[in-house]
Amino acid sequence: MKRSVVVLLSGGLDSATCLWWARARGLRLHALSLRYGQRHSKELDSARALAKAAGAELHEVDLRLPWLKTSSLVDGAKALPDVPLSRIGKGGVPSTYVPGRNTMFVALGLSLADAVGAEAVVVGANALDYSGYPDCRPEFYKAFGRVARLGTKRGDAGRRLDVVAPLVRLDKAAIARLARRLGVPIGLTWSCYAGTRRPCGRCDSCKLRAKGFAEAGFADPAL
Amino acid sequence: MKRSVVVLLSGGLDSATCLWWARARGLRLHALSLRYGQRHSKELDSARALAKAAGAELHEVDLRLPWLKTSSLVDGAKALPDVPLSRIGKGGVPSTYVPGRNTMFVALGLSLADAVGAEAVVVGANALDYSGYPDCRPEFYKAFGRVARLGTKRGDAGRRLDVVAPLVRLDKAAIARLARRLGVPIGLTWSCYAGTRRPCGRCDSCKLRAKGFAEAGFADPAL
Repeated sequence: MKRSVVVLLSGGLDSATCLWWARARGLRLHALSLRYGQRHSKELDSARALAKAAGAELHEVDLRLPWLKTSSLVDGAKALPDVPLSRIGKGGVPSTYVPGRNTMFVALGLSLADAVGAEAVVVGANALDYSGYPDCRPEFYKAFGRVARLGTKRGDAGRRLDVVAPLVRLDKAAIARLARRLGVPIGLTWSCYAGTRRPCGRCDSCKLRAKGFAEAGFADPAL
Repeated sequence: MKRSVVVLLSGGLDSATCLWWARARGLRLHALSLRYGQRHSKELDSARALAKAAGAELHEVDLRLPWLKTSSLVDGAKALPDVPLSRIGKGGVPSTYVPGRNTMFVALGLSLADAVGAEAVVVGANALDYSGYPDCRPEFYKAFGRVARLGTKRGDAGRRLDVVAPLVRLDKAAIARLARRLGVPIGLTWSCYAGTRRPCGRCDSCKLRAKGFAEAGFADPAL
């Protein structure tokens, strides 16, 4: 049987790059997309288009958790942060933090991996994110690898089941360059926190992405 | 503010004992109940009745994951194991294993704890379970504690967030005794894997529970 992996696919640039990173390794692809009450469905539409373009099997999960309303990424009545680029990630955990989101996302990925026989869960967390979000730290994913090996049927049988974050040491410019090299259809990705017709340009995610492409030295195909 | 915990409440004897264990400590109780497509809703009804009796705030989550159909606890068309008591837990991971269930359950509990400001997620895993289920091992919960501290806003702020398995070294007789001492309304709990009107008496869970009460030396109030 062909080796397979589960890629956590949000529809943004980072997770899309992970999907093509795994694709380049000739692995069979399971993409997992999570609907947890985001302000908009643009990134989920992107996840669908990306999974199709990559030839991945898409698994969409609905997770309605009323307590996530504490996050401005879920509660549309809350204002999204709009701070200067130099201040992003400096003010502690931002209001866009969704309690335990990546913990749940990885856990769901491990469940899927254990059911379909995949050898890893691949996540797009990276250096930029973990300046603000605790659940994007390298140590967090390392600790989760231990959970994966101890708590699954695969791990119990001595078979491989890792939690892999291939972008974890990269900044956004390096990710943009890698995405281009891997042939990611960057125009299909969606990073903006707002649900406007075009990326808003004002949220943290838009600002960091724009800076990344500027440093990488080429235009963002999604704009 | 009163200290609070999240108790993962399946509706069985073990999780009910955890709920009363936390209650005896004077903690504010959040109970988390997970509907993941179980063969029957008896244990969910029990969870509701138990949360009410304990004065806990109940959070019910719906998690529909098509890939869980690999488990005989989810796919009603699959036969439940019916093996002699002496063979339970000896044949490797049983067909009732739900891929990554406890991993997802703890992850959801951590999300809730991070949102409501609870200092621990309490799970009823115990010595009997981890003879068969990998996601009931003491080491698994220890590793998850590290994930909790690294990957949450609470942990990031240096505040306490533990994954606690108070029954992890106890067998079913010791749990039955503890339940009685704590005043758990044992008659409200439901452990049977089948959805019959009365506990089936033939599934692993019924057999282990019967053995536990026999060893504890008193009658099971649920029968």
